[in-house]
Amino acid sequence: MTASHGPIDRFYSVIPAGGIGSRLWPLSRADAPKFLHDLTGSGQTLLRDTWDRLAPLSGEQRIMVVTGRAHRAAVERQLPELADPNVVLESEPRDSSAAIGLAAAILQKREPGVIVGSFAADHVITGSTAFRAAVAEAVVVADAGYIATIGIRPSEPAVGFGYIHSGARLDVAGAPSALAVNSFVEKPDLATAKRYVQSGDYLWNAGMFIARADRLLEELGRTEPELLDGLLRLAEAWDDPATRGPAVDRIWPALKKVAIDYSVAEPAAAAGRLAVVPGLFAWDDVGDFASIAKLHSGGGKRDLAILGEGARVLADSSSGIVVSQGGRTIALIGVEDIVVVDTPDALLVTTSANAQKVKSVVDALKLSGRGDVL
Amino acid sequence: MTASHGPIDRFYSVIPAGGIGSRLWPLSRADAPKFLHDLTGSGQTLLRDTWDRLAPLSGEQRIMVVTGRAHRAAVERQLPELADPNVVLESEPRDSSAAIGLAAAILQKREPGVIVGSFAADHVITGSTAFRAAVAEAVVVADAGYIATIGIRPSEPAVGFGYIHSGARLDVAGAPSALAVNSFVEKPDLATAKRYVQSGDYLWNAGMFIARADRLLEELGRTEPELLDGLLRLAEAWDDPATRGPAVDRIWPALKKVAIDYSVAEPAAAAGRLAVVPGLFAWDDVGDFASIAKLHSGGGKRDLAILGEGARVLADSSSGIVVSQGGRTIALIGVEDIVVVDTPDALLVTTSANAQKVKSVVDALKLSGRGDVL
Repeated sequence: MTASHGPIDRFYSVIPAGGIGSRLWPLSRADAPKFLHDLTGSGQTLLRDTWDRLAPLSGEQRIMVVTGRAHRAAVERQLPELADPNVVLESEPRDSSAAIGLAAAILQKREPGVIVGSFAADHVITGSTAFRAAVAEAVVVADAGYIATIGIRPSEPAVGFGYIHSGARLDVAGAPSALAVNSFVEKPDLATAKRYVQSGDYLWNAGMFIARADRLLEELGRTEPELLDGLLRLAEAWDDPATRGPAVDRIWPALKKVAIDYSVAEPAAAAGRLAVVPGLFAWDDVGDFASIAKLHSGGGKRDLAILGEGARVLADSSSGIVVSQGGRTIALIGVEDIVVVDTPDALLVTTSANAQKVKSVVDALKLSGRGDVL
Repeated sequence: MTASHGPIDRFYSVIPAGGIGSRLWPLSRADAPKFLHDLTGSGQTLLRDTWDRLAPLSGEQRIMVVTGRAHRAAVERQLPELADPNVVLESEPRDSSAAIGLAAAILQKREPGVIVGSFAADHVITGSTAFRAAVAEAVVVADAGYIATIGIRPSEPAVGFGYIHSGARLDVAGAPSALAVNSFVEKPDLATAKRYVQSGDYLWNAGMFIARADRLLEELGRTEPELLDGLLRLAEAWDDPATRGPAVDRIWPALKKVAIDYSVAEPAAAAGRLAVVPGLFAWDDVGDFASIAKLHSGGGKRDLAILGEGARVLADSSSGIVVSQGGRTIALIGVEDIVVVDTPDALLVTTSANAQKVKSVVDALKLSGRGDVL
């Protein structure tokens, strides 16, 4: 049995706050990544929303944030409660296996047997009771030795997410809804997505991983022994100010860049050591402007979502989303499903249907030497 | 016979430089009206283009510009050759009958028998030989006592222009193509416009009027005797620095606001005293962004026209027009027939099909107290 309030026993939250969110350019930038924006209209950043969601589950003193050095000040402004030993700074991005693996290695050394749960800093979740219930079950499953993930029960045949193909029910006491994972599948086309949703056996992959730290590191060591070795050496040196800096300088830049999906999740699934707990809450990775527009319109296609404090928008027969950061007057006339993102030095105009292509613009700007606006 | 080069005898050009061009907001503004923009990519303003077109016809010393006091400095910067006595400043806008009528009254007093031709400061014309030929014929017709206009032979069934319904050929020596005018007709719907073009009897109304100054004033006096009286009193006081100021302060603000189309052209047409010379040159009033886009694409629908010095535009599968005034990077993805006008304090996003509605945004901004961006 798990208590329905108060921190979950032995649980530690890890928030990797890394990605820029290129498909949200020009709102998201190297110096203003997605997790530092309020995309929901909640009045606070996605990072703060994430903190507020996790604090009741692990306790404020048991949340670790892994982020880039450049974002340290912004992160600490957002999270004044964040304990200093729980700030893990990357000197450069080395992808999620290194980020989450280092957190697990540090925490395992500090507190053997700890159960870590990693949750993206820039996703949107509504339904805190269902979220807590899923995490609590996942912790039980993790304690039984599985690498656990939480898969979101799909509300529609989304083509923008990866899916988890679930298998048989697991027999873990205290985790009645946990299932085996057959496999992870990439973003499908619409027909395939419809089939997935109809079958009832597919869940959205929300990139949440919950595991005993020792088990997570063990899985990582099976596929990436050198990476694990580097992380263990870093963890060894971490809590001594005299050794941390030199170890980071020596080890971190050489670590292999690999997503935890490939180093841990997929191999563990193939070996039958991965479990999924269905999450019955609403979730979105708000990966592009179309999904932000949808979030604000409640799914309707007729509305115009307006983001930005003090936005001065005048719209006539228009729908979609306007993000206003420049304080300028914005007039829209007869444009449907439009995406307008207005920032002081860059302007994006596209449509919801093309929202996924924004990343290609960012790539083109890089190539053409206009990195000043990225 | 009219000489094919050198100034046309007794001819004086008048350029009313007044309208803001509301349908070109936020490019055109109270302090940056349409005639002060380069909309053709010629590298100079429409006003300067107009001057360069008229100077060979009347001579540089015989061009009068009627404009608002606020635009004096900008106009003189554009037209350094403009003679000081030929600058007529309006203390406030009183519409075209007052503007053109005052010019005619001043010129008639200075030079009885002068023939004035009034040409908008913000239209686009290509084909200087055909333009000269039409003006020369119109001057002959005007000398014979008619109020003359130049009607443009339509190249397509445009619905954005008014039309002139022409009648029988006039028998004026030296003006072989001059026709009587049956009537002026308002902007038609597409079916009507097609019928007009097919009939061959309809010409675009380009708002050009050529007349002996005394005849123009006579026509104005028939419909607006008080207005004429005010203009004559102003003209009487004009060339004496001691009397001009007081006369303007007393008389100008009280003048009736009425378009010369209603005070002169339509009544004269009804009475058989209006003639039209078909103009075989390309003309556009570039009244909205759709027409600017068309101008730059040569009529094609696939192209993206980009206006603005140093514009930084990155476009993927997009067509329409981008006007860049802010120096910002502008990215377009998958938007067709789009209109994006980016200025430092205001942004417009619409489509070619909605370009005519821009004026309604300007009206709404006025009503909502956001006149700062107008």
